[in-house]
This record gives sequence, C-alpha cells and structure tokens, in this order.
Amino acid sequence: MEEWYGEKQTNDVMLSFKASKLLYSGKSKYQDIKIIENETYGRILLLDGTIQLTEKDEFIYHEVLAHIPLMSLNDPKKVLIIGGGDGGLAREVLKHNVTNVDLVEIDEQVVNLSKNYLPFVSSSFKDQRVKVHIKDGAEFVKSKKGKYDVILIDSTDPVGAASVLFTSEFYKNAKNLLKVNGILGSQTGSPFMFPEHFKMAYENMKIYFKTLKVYTAPIPTYPGTIWSFTFATNGDLKRKRSRNFRTLFYNEEYHDNNINPEFLKDLIH
Amino acid sequence: MEEWYGEKQTNDVMLSFKASKLLYSGKSKYQDIKIIENETYGRILLLDGTIQLTEKDEFIYHEVLAHIPLMSLNDPKKVLIIGGGDGGLAREVLKHNVTNVDLVEIDEQVVNLSKNYLPFVSSSFKDQRVKVHIKDGAEFVKSKKGKYDVILIDSTDPVGAASVLFTSEFYKNAKNLLKVNGILGSQTGSPFMFPEHFKMAYENMKIYFKTLKVYTAPIPTYPGTIWSFTFATNGDLKRKRSRNFRTLFYNEEYHDNNINPEFLKDLIH
Repeated sequence: MEEWYGEKQTNDVMLSFKASKLLYSGKSKYQDIKIIENETYGRILLLDGTIQLTEKDEFIYHEVLAHIPLMSLNDPKKVLIIGGGDGGLAREVLKHNVTNVDLVEIDEQVVNLSKNYLPFVSSSFKDQRVKVHIKDGAEFVKSKKGKYDVILIDSTDPVGAASVLFTSEFYKNAKNLLKVNGILGSQTGSPFMFPEHFKMAYENMKIYFKTLKVYTAPIPTYPGTIWSFTFATNGDLKRKRSRNFRTLFYNEEYHDNNINPEFLKDLIH
Repeated sequence: MEEWYGEKQTNDVMLSFKASKLLYSGKSKYQDIKIIENETYGRILLLDGTIQLTEKDEFIYHEVLAHIPLMSLNDPKKVLIIGGGDGGLAREVLKHNVTNVDLVEIDEQVVNLSKNYLPFVSSSFKDQRVKVHIKDGAEFVKSKKGKYDVILIDSTDPVGAASVLFTSEFYKNAKNLLKVNGILGSQTGSPFMFPEHFKMAYENMKIYFKTLKVYTAPIPTYPGTIWSFTFATNGDLKRKRSRNFRTLFYNEEYHDNNINPEFLKDLIH
C-alpha cells in the first residue's frame, strides 16, 4: 500500500511525499514526530505534520543561516543555537574555527531521533565543541550570562510554541547575551506566503539592533519556498573572510550582494 | 465535496491545490487543460496536469524571462515569443517601448481560455503591438525571415512535445532570426530537481552563442522551485537602462549581480 505524508502548507495547498519507508512515527512530550524516506528528497523530518528538513534541500537553509553571520566576523568563537535539534545548523557552524557551540533544544526526542535516523545532519553532535542543552530557549536566554559572537534561531514557525522566539522580549534577552558587535540570525519565515510573520519578527528585531539585513533563499519543501533569514547586529554584516570549506548554495557573491526581490523591499520600508 | 488538483512533480512528490471553483476542464487538440481557482494561489492553469502558472506567483517567472534580455538592450523593438499562450510574458515585454511582439503558440485553446479566465495575464492580447500566430514554434523559426531583438522561449518542460524547443537545431534557427547583438532567453527548468534538462539546454545553446548567463529565481509552484532562465547572445547581457515601470521581483541589483548558487556553478563548469 502506498503511504503518502504531506504538509498542509495552507488550508488549501498541500505538498506530499510518498514514503518508501516510514522510519519513525511517534509522539514526544511536545509534538508528533515522523521520519520518512522518499526517493526524491531522501530522509524527511516532520514535526506536527510540518516539514522540518529533507536530506536533499536542507543545505540551503543551514548554509545561509550559519555562514552569513559567521563570515561577517573575523574570528567567531562562541555560538548559541536556539532550536536546531537535528544538528544541521551546528554542522555548518563547525566549518568555522569556533570553540563552543551551545545548542538549546526543547525536545530531547528530536536530538535522539536525529542521531539515529539523520546522520547527514546529526554527525555534528559527535564534535566535542557542541554542548546540547535540553531546555526551553526562551528561558535559557533569560538566565544565561556568557557572551556569544553569534546567536542563531533555528526554530519552527512563529505560530504556537515557537512564537515566543520572535517576540521583542526574546530579542532583548538575546541581545544581552551577544558581544558588542555580535550577530543575531533567525529564520523569519516566508515573506511571500506569510508576510505578516516576517514583518512581526523584523519589526521586533529592529527595536534592539542598528543594522538589519534580510537574505532570501529558496527552500523547495517549505511553504511559499521563498524563505527569509534576518540578521541583526550593532556591528556590521560585511563579509570578513573567504570560505576555506565547500558549500552547495552559499558563496561570497551571495553574501556581498544582499539582493531582495521588490515585493520584499516593499514589506520592510 | 472537496476537489483537489495536483501536479505529480516526480513519481513520489506531489503539490496539490483545493479548488474553490473548477473554472474549466477539457481537452484541446494537444493537451488536457484545466483552470481552477484556489484561495491561496488564485487562478491556476494546468496543462496535462502540470502547473503552468498561478495568479499569485506568475510575476516572478514572467519578469525574469522578459526583463533580463530587454533591459540588456538600449532600444529593443521587435520581440518573438515562442509559447507563452497565456499572455503573461507578453504583458511584461509590453512594459518596454517595443513596436512588435510576435507570439507563436501551438494551441489556440490556451489563448482563448486565457482570454476568458486569466485576464491578469491575457490583458496583453488587447494591445495592438501583439500578433498571435497559432503555429508550431519550431516550424515558425525555420520559415521566418524577419530579424528580432529578442527571442523568448516560454514553453512547457523539455519532455514530450516541447523538447524540440531545447535542441541545437532550434537554437541555430533562432540565432538566424536574431539581430547581430540580439538575445535569446529561455526557461531551462530546475537545475536542482532536473539538472540533466538544464544541462542539455545550456550545452546546446552554447554551440551558437558566445555569452551565456543563467539566472535563477524561486517559482514556488514549479517542481524543485529553484528555476533557471538561460540567456544567450553574441553581444552582451549588461543592463543598459533603469526601469520606468513597476515590478514585484526583478530589480536592477538582481540583473547586475548574476549570482548562481554553488551547485549550479558546478553544473556549468
């Protein structure tokens, strides 16, 4: 029997995948978790029926969110990741000469299942520089004292549980954890499909940071596919170095020319 | 009863839309044609079950394919469109100070149905500068003598009937119809999902033209969504003018900085 799994991107649009294997299906304390295998997209992680990543296209999201901020600093050492329990963002962060990556994931099951089923991202957990904290990210940034070069928000979308990670209070706490010229980076949803989510995050970030830049990238398996990543700092976001590692999406031209489509410019003016 | 219509993007990936209305369903001499209405994406044209355009995202495809070549010429006058029977590409072409647009569409039904159901694109057919030829595009470029500033290929993908529009013979005939520094532009599929289609078109174009540039743009409702547009000329593709019209995707920065993701560079080296 053919088993199809899909995400209702809106009430009336759906992207679905035929599973050649259902690798895992269960419920954690926080959410419904499924991991399937699909011939076109490889292994796919779904949380509460929403696609978190696919093996074929995850590189785009993870490269943009990691490398824009890290390449904007000469010598970043300490990085905080909020969310990112699959390990993919940490994998990209570790391509830099960093010394500490604190990864704060609320759902231990996501970390454990990724270790079991998604080695292409979770390989990063084997690196001694990565410390996983099973905690609520919003609480973590309130209590923590240490200073980070970069803080990255790799969360589900700003509806439901993760919405606290897009509030002005969260950004204020995050700012207090950053070094003076540190950089905050967050996925900020699809400005094409959900412009109101994007605008809310952007406006809230703007309260605490002088310089904001939005990069867009296509994420084929996300709703609307035109995805935004917003970076905020009181320093700058100019590229300081060239890659000494391989990427499949990010490159120096993409970093240096922060090109936004016209409709996005209209949203942030 | 809920009616969903979808495109199988590959054997095991499907994008589907709930129709709030089925506006048209029928068969022409060449293909199965459906036009549905969807609350998220507006009106959607499907040919043989493949999404040709949606009201919400068609601007991206049409703007890139029209404005890159036309803005690369000081004073383009004559334009040939192969395919494009919905009128959307002609709409963008008419934003320039052109005098003649020959549009060669094989399927008269597509033109007629677009006039009835898709006014946001087919409005261009009311313009006196547009002449519609109901003909086979591959035959048209063999027989025709007149010289064009720009030739644009707005076809279905290079499988089945449209594959002739991606052959070296077709590009040779198209070149003979271009003025010395004229520009050929074609959609060349998704280099992310179907790299072999893209490479075939690119390699065939390279035989007859000195300068090729690939632009990518996200088309949320197309398979793989990372779409390529290849432009070829024996002149150059530098932008010659600034817009005196509004766009929602294309802008001068996008044109001037021809940024390709790393994986695409690997395909064309």
